[in-house]
Amino acid sequence: MQRREVLMGLAGGAAALAGCKPGAVAQPGGAAASARFEWRMYTTWPKNFPGLGTGAERLAERISQMSAGRLKVTVYGAGERVPALEVFDAVSRGSAQMGHGAAYYWKGKLASAPLFCTVPFGFTAQEQNAWLYYGGGMALWREAYERFNLMPFDAGNTGTQMAGWFNKPIDTLDDLKGLKMRVPGLGGEILSKLGVVPVNIPGGELFTALSTGTIDAAEFVGPYNDLAFGLHRAARYYYYPGWHEPGATLEAFVNLDAWKALPEDLQVIVQTACEATSHTMLAEMTARNNRALTTLVTEHGVDVRPLPNDILAALKVESEQYLAEAAKAEPLMARVAESISQFRDEMIRGTAIAEHAFLNARSA
Amino acid sequence: MQRREVLMGLAGGAAALAGCKPGAVAQPGGAAASARFEWRMYTTWPKNFPGLGTGAERLAERISQMSAGRLKVTVYGAGERVPALEVFDAVSRGSAQMGHGAAYYWKGKLASAPLFCTVPFGFTAQEQNAWLYYGGGMALWREAYERFNLMPFDAGNTGTQMAGWFNKPIDTLDDLKGLKMRVPGLGGEILSKLGVVPVNIPGGELFTALSTGTIDAAEFVGPYNDLAFGLHRAARYYYYPGWHEPGATLEAFVNLDAWKALPEDLQVIVQTACEATSHTMLAEMTARNNRALTTLVTEHGVDVRPLPNDILAALKVESEQYLAEAAKAEPLMARVAESISQFRDEMIRGTAIAEHAFLNARSA
Repeated sequence: MQRREVLMGLAGGAAALAGCKPGAVAQPGGAAASARFEWRMYTTWPKNFPGLGTGAERLAERISQMSAGRLKVTVYGAGERVPALEVFDAVSRGSAQMGHGAAYYWKGKLASAPLFCTVPFGFTAQEQNAWLYYGGGMALWREAYERFNLMPFDAGNTGTQMAGWFNKPIDTLDDLKGLKMRVPGLGGEILSKLGVVPVNIPGGELFTALSTGTIDAAEFVGPYNDLAFGLHRAARYYYYPGWHEPGATLEAFVNLDAWKALPEDLQVIVQTACEATSHTMLAEMTARNNRALTTLVTEHGVDVRPLPNDILAALKVESEQYLAEAAKAEPLMARVAESISQFRDEMIRGTAIAEHAFLNARSA
Repeated sequence: MQRREVLMGLAGGAAALAGCKPGAVAQPGGAAASARFEWRMYTTWPKNFPGLGTGAERLAERISQMSAGRLKVTVYGAGERVPALEVFDAVSRGSAQMGHGAAYYWKGKLASAPLFCTVPFGFTAQEQNAWLYYGGGMALWREAYERFNLMPFDAGNTGTQMAGWFNKPIDTLDDLKGLKMRVPGLGGEILSKLGVVPVNIPGGELFTALSTGTIDAAEFVGPYNDLAFGLHRAARYYYYPGWHEPGATLEAFVNLDAWKALPEDLQVIVQTACEATSHTMLAEMTARNNRALTTLVTEHGVDVRPLPNDILAALKVESEQYLAEAAKAEPLMARVAESISQFRDEMIRGTAIAEHAFLNARSA
């Protein structure tokens, strides 16, 4: 996919969807400029949850501000109108005009969905954005969501997450066997190959499950979010790196009928606000994860450890295997997996002499 | 600085500058909504130069589109109205309303300016944005530029650059002595401590200077931009990593009088378009650098090499020394250097267990 299609051609693409002539600009005072819209944004996060929920609020606020109130977006936290995992369906059928979540939640409806969020041993946030905007990712994502009457946008990224909290040290592959761990998505599927029993529990119930021994381990996001849930009071060992979620894209999606009803300027406002939210949310997560890490270590005595190399190596083998197998599941999945795989080969070579080489030199 | 001041408080801050009540929203059809603005954006790049110039065009286009033509921004390349290095002054005095460039060009006017672009052995793009938005960087930048009647925004990032092109192998510290190298900014000052003779030559003249032997080495940006200038036909050895520019922020700045004249919705549109441009330009540079690197190696036989560890170590020592010395130069410079230094300590610990640990695991 060419840059033009996603970026320079945004107005064209948006206008085409809206049935307008590309390049046509709505005149202030005309019908388009005077129309007003009130949108509901359902989110998969608790209202104002650090980083994720506050990012969704910022997105809505920016849209309302930039449109001077012509497109007013009201945010609802998980469970306020529909449960977190029903947001996709609710926006798809038009109960809300917009949603904010993470694509891997929709795996049951769309096999390829998790690949638009993050892939084990895949991309960092920076690489993921390169793939979405200049590697064909966004076009595939739009194609995938179109069948659900949705238009997707990246609207946030967590950065590289942590591997999770464990109630005992993980020194060998044997230590993983039989471990009941909260780890949704592809990470859970891959860990299950090494004997872990993955379970899915909503974030808000993690602390209780982990502290009562219902589960032995749990991953959520990273220091900033995990500290907010108090997970350091439920388990002592905090492992890195987040091999399964090296740069998880958060998403906004808009009901296609609602999207088509917008004049072109409001469409560009929605897309640009999403891009800006991606930018500032990653900045927030990066800054606050680091601060929270310091708090976890110095104030709460958390034992932060790297996963042993042989465990990481085994997880990498299983991850590659999974992606290769998954690609056979259905045609779109195959195309998405192939796109990621090809782009990643180039990306690995590029990052090796850029960010990675720099980080090595800085830490030497 | 709190997030609220930079992000959630944008409307408040913008409105305060504009003399409006925070939270007040211009009504369509009112005076604010009907006012139209035509801005000139002067840039330090050749018109439509890959990544940098095209990013400035995209920024202008988004502002024009989101405002439905109420704020129309016309972009001028370097030299079209004023030379590249006079853009700052031209926008400061109001000859243009907006500029796009890189802060380290303004070192002669403002000692701390380069620190808002990139610092040797400092931040990656992701870390730099964390510092700007959640580490106090943006507040310092605004303070620094306010005395020039300018409002700064981040509006792009190159990612980690390359160390440069050399016409002979660089194996030992001795190989650097007496080398005439095009390397502007802090990188040049630090290399001069190791015997390099830094010179500053505009990008467009690099190829001739390097191929005629006027200079022995040159750094510009990275594979995507360097390939466009044909530097691979002027020197054979291409060294990494860009220790001196690990994540160079590109900037937009707006004349403060022009800024204050905007209604609140257009102010938020300008800021959000800048943030979105930061997001998509880094994606573009990342994707296209990698593709260009492949081209340079496979099609042009470029010899891509890492700088030897002892040279990187010496450069790191000189870089730290430089930052410590520079901090004594003047009060604002001291505060900026101190802010970066403190934030970097936390950032290095955080990145070590996140992106860096992940990249190590992926490449193992």
